[in-house]
Amino acid sequence: MRFESLSRVAALADTLPVADEVARAAAARRQDSLTKPPGSLGRLEEIALFMAAWRGTERPRADRAQALVFAGNHGICAQGVNPFPQEVTAQMVANFQAGSAAINQLCRVNGAELSVIALDLDRPTADFTTAPAMSGAEVLEAMNRGAAAIDPQADILTLGEMGIGNSTISAALCAALFGGEVADWVGRGTGSDDAGLRRKIDAITRGLERHMGCAPLETLAALGGREQAAICGAVLAARAARIPVILDGFICTAAVAPLFVADPRLLDHCLVGHLSLEPGHRKLLAAMGRTAILDFDMRLGEGSGAALALGIVRSALACHNGMATFADAGIGGA
Amino acid sequence: MRFESLSRVAALADTLPVADEVARAAAARRQDSLTKPPGSLGRLEEIALFMAAWRGTERPRADRAQALVFAGNHGICAQGVNPFPQEVTAQMVANFQAGSAAINQLCRVNGAELSVIALDLDRPTADFTTAPAMSGAEVLEAMNRGAAAIDPQADILTLGEMGIGNSTISAALCAALFGGEVADWVGRGTGSDDAGLRRKIDAITRGLERHMGCAPLETLAALGGREQAAICGAVLAARAARIPVILDGFICTAAVAPLFVADPRLLDHCLVGHLSLEPGHRKLLAAMGRTAILDFDMRLGEGSGAALALGIVRSALACHNGMATFADAGIGGA
Repeated sequence: MRFESLSRVAALADTLPVADEVARAAAARRQDSLTKPPGSLGRLEEIALFMAAWRGTERPRADRAQALVFAGNHGICAQGVNPFPQEVTAQMVANFQAGSAAINQLCRVNGAELSVIALDLDRPTADFTTAPAMSGAEVLEAMNRGAAAIDPQADILTLGEMGIGNSTISAALCAALFGGEVADWVGRGTGSDDAGLRRKIDAITRGLERHMGCAPLETLAALGGREQAAICGAVLAARAARIPVILDGFICTAAVAPLFVADPRLLDHCLVGHLSLEPGHRKLLAAMGRTAILDFDMRLGEGSGAALALGIVRSALACHNGMATFADAGIGGA
Repeated sequence: MRFESLSRVAALADTLPVADEVARAAAARRQDSLTKPPGSLGRLEEIALFMAAWRGTERPRADRAQALVFAGNHGICAQGVNPFPQEVTAQMVANFQAGSAAINQLCRVNGAELSVIALDLDRPTADFTTAPAMSGAEVLEAMNRGAAAIDPQADILTLGEMGIGNSTISAALCAALFGGEVADWVGRGTGSDDAGLRRKIDAITRGLERHMGCAPLETLAALGGREQAAICGAVLAARAARIPVILDGFICTAAVAPLFVADPRLLDHCLVGHLSLEPGHRKLLAAMGRTAILDFDMRLGEGSGAALALGIVRSALACHNGMATFADAGIGGA
């Protein structure tokens, strides 16, 4: 999949694959035949049906799981929105590559193959208080890098990000796309104090004044980051390959919010792995009509909540595929 | 561990091992040194500290996980409280032994060694509307069978149960131990209709009239089941071996409610794996001041929610033990 025009992204909702309702119905019949009271596995059953619909088979697998983490740097850091220097982004990428971060452990335990893609860390986006963060060409390039990173043989994809400053750009994106008070979208990110919070709100307010009224993908260009554009590209390329996606927390969900506003159907193949403690995430999920799989007061990013939720998907599919039916087991009903 | 007197159980709280606060503090220092913002792994950090405290080491493992499922039959079924015949209990035990139930798949995916212990299925407890469900000797025997089932080398234990009719006895136990309206403790179990619900409430009301005012362990004898007594025995034997426990849903938590009322410290080494959809569970956890790890609208029993939560514990410990510290990774702070 290759993106050549931001204005054509919304129309992809009319041409990309849709959920296979025949497979979903077959999976639902299978669930009701398994040796348990119907519905008693709750959300595990819903997840199994979701996987069946997107993989287009009654008995979907998650044998091959891919985890992608995209990293970017942000010109908005010039406004003092973050207590950590931008060098930390590259240091954390090195930590990922050394296998030493949280996401490495979570991918290992939950069975995902992790790739980390650093996007021009030595060339931060522009400070959105003074200019659009990215040109349209830069957004397309990052989207194409995201799309190219997809393993077309994967059964499922988890997404995550790293980038000092990107809780600020996420709040800016949400405020621009959904409106409301800027302060309600802003949280402490990796550890802002009260003065840092005020600088975030002030910078976002000035950015919104400068870039108001853009179309959704142009809003991504004006306020977002390369790692977020790459996440959009990966989400759309996964959809083209019928690969279900598990999004992570606030920054990852904010990354795809422009796709949601462009056409909500573009995210039909996505689950949200966890509800972040970053306060904007709850508001964002409400705006998108979504419920996260897990709620563990996490606020790390890196795709950590998505990788954790992958373990839940594995359990859901293990039950779906491995349990006997009442007929198999010779167990009588009511 | 061997139990010889119900009246001596409460006093075990004074002699059983307690949490190792030195190990917990060491684990907390380790968490704060790892390459993430302090606290950003949320409840995964809390779980790692809990495991450290009970295993008595800064870096606890969950390499060896045991899952126990106890099964029993119940005389209260004579009151028409369940739409399924009691034979289903033995049929489901056979299904567990064949590896074909939900709990088998969940143990496999989440790395637990499963044992299923059927407790005199051909000899149901007495109908508690006419007599105590069990004698004291029967309770002790079941507790001892539960205690004997523990693998003393396990790092963690998950518990579950199977028994047609045991959502009724659980509601009865809760109403007797915590008071309140009987109807508020009663749910549909494996699938009662409205008339079945009324029969459950009526039977429990009559049972409470007959057995009111007992001490906690005598209440277990009067109203509970062998699988619940075995769960109590397993919980206490695990405590003696400093093995943390993950309880399952309503019936498993109700099983240990007599221990909670006898002395709440007896359950300090226990987590609750999930919040069941069975309505009494939310009320029971509130009464016990507990929060479940997962909330997935499940209502299956078998230890399914406990086994699922084991995967979360594995992820928590993988991060705790596997991540680099900031010093290791050479990453600068604020």
